[in-house]
Amino acid sequence: MNATLTFGNTTAGKIAVVGLGPGEPRFLTPQASAALEEAEALYGYMPYLERVPVREGQQRFASDNREELARAGAALAHAAAGAKVAMVSGGDPGVFAMAAAVIEAIETGPAEWRALDLTIVPGITAMLAVAARAGAPLGHDFCAVSLSDNLKPWEIIETRLRLAAQAGFAMAFYNPVSKARPHQLDRAFEVLREELAGTVPVIFGRAVGRPDERMRLVPLTNARGHMADMATCIIVGSPETRIVERPGLPALVYTPRRAGDA
Amino acid sequence: MNATLTFGNTTAGKIAVVGLGPGEPRFLTPQASAALEEAEALYGYMPYLERVPVREGQQRFASDNREELARAGAALAHAAAGAKVAMVSGGDPGVFAMAAAVIEAIETGPAEWRALDLTIVPGITAMLAVAARAGAPLGHDFCAVSLSDNLKPWEIIETRLRLAAQAGFAMAFYNPVSKARPHQLDRAFEVLREELAGTVPVIFGRAVGRPDERMRLVPLTNARGHMADMATCIIVGSPETRIVERPGLPALVYTPRRAGDA
Repeated sequence: MNATLTFGNTTAGKIAVVGLGPGEPRFLTPQASAALEEAEALYGYMPYLERVPVREGQQRFASDNREELARAGAALAHAAAGAKVAMVSGGDPGVFAMAAAVIEAIETGPAEWRALDLTIVPGITAMLAVAARAGAPLGHDFCAVSLSDNLKPWEIIETRLRLAAQAGFAMAFYNPVSKARPHQLDRAFEVLREELAGTVPVIFGRAVGRPDERMRLVPLTNARGHMADMATCIIVGSPETRIVERPGLPALVYTPRRAGDA
Repeated sequence: MNATLTFGNTTAGKIAVVGLGPGEPRFLTPQASAALEEAEALYGYMPYLERVPVREGQQRFASDNREELARAGAALAHAAAGAKVAMVSGGDPGVFAMAAAVIEAIETGPAEWRALDLTIVPGITAMLAVAARAGAPLGHDFCAVSLSDNLKPWEIIETRLRLAAQAGFAMAFYNPVSKARPHQLDRAFEVLREELAGTVPVIFGRAVGRPDERMRLVPLTNARGHMADMATCIIVGSPETRIVERPGLPALVYTPRRAGDA
């Protein structure tokens, strides 16, 4: 798994799965910029593609949010034909995003896709941007959970929330609501209120760094599903998470590096 | 918690806590570059400071790895005197790094520190870089756990590992070993072998993207503490994590977006 093996050793086209971060250019790494610049063809969910500056001669293939596996297959077939392809992904492609879909498509697709020069380009995932804006709520042990039951039964989600609360993890929630699932986030908060004190801080972060940024801090007892939309990342503190009030400034939320009696 | 409140509204100096990512310039975001460039004084653990290009007239204050709170206090005092200060942090400052220490110092320090213009600049944290190099092992629900018992009792760590395994989380381990704690990682693997199948993939990732990069993939049954050092980030798959073999290329490790019977 060294650079020579991963980046060389094939002439059958290239595919990069590129994390754009939370959306503002200031979060885009030089590696991601270079991968986008180099690509002959860009694939991705329309709102992510729209964030990439147009370059003449570069093809664009936009798709719907729900067609991940089909989109991955189309991009891989294009790369296998010899093209330099970039699949754009919001945040980090490895966190509830396109990298797993691309690799699943490789696993189930034609053998030649396994010979492709594949690079996953990491990015700033939503929870890191929201945490940075709020302080350091993920400063100690934490978990990241998708609340979507499109791809797993809701019972698994409830079990994971309970075990995570019992473990003392702070938690970041991705995909907290959708039009098809308006009530599940309220149920998630109910489950957590059975396991955690009502004073545990909950952060709703949306569109960090963009003009329509919205940050909201409430105690768990007051957390409600209508406070989030599809683009919100939610961070629930651990029992150790603290709030530091600042006169005239937003409070800072942080989880100390110390836990238990140590 | 909007931009005006957080970035303006004070004249008492500035402090940015800046995530450098895993170490290579290609991971450094434009926001981080700008914060480093703007700073009049840099604070940080020596090996991180050494990654920042020297700029004439910019002061540097290097410190030992174990002096986090003292380092944070010195940087805050400097900022409170009116300077533009950057505290550099490896990876993401909010994940087992300097952001929580800086906010803890603010909480326990003089009231004027609460008036400082504080910005946390997110970065690519180690687990995202290691995951990207290996495939998408964090492609579904996962947790991040520090294995250091400097700041929490070892019993809490074992409990968290068991609950995380029962929850079906993939796991990323930070601070897996140190000279003072050579045997605890072996104990952690023992605990996990009691909860998980021996076939679960374990990835040891070190110095991703650097000339001395080392990636290693073993089944849990063969995972041993000596395979890691202080700078290693370890990813343990979930029971759903899969390996895709590639002729002449490293295998890809990914956790499918689908879980349970959905």
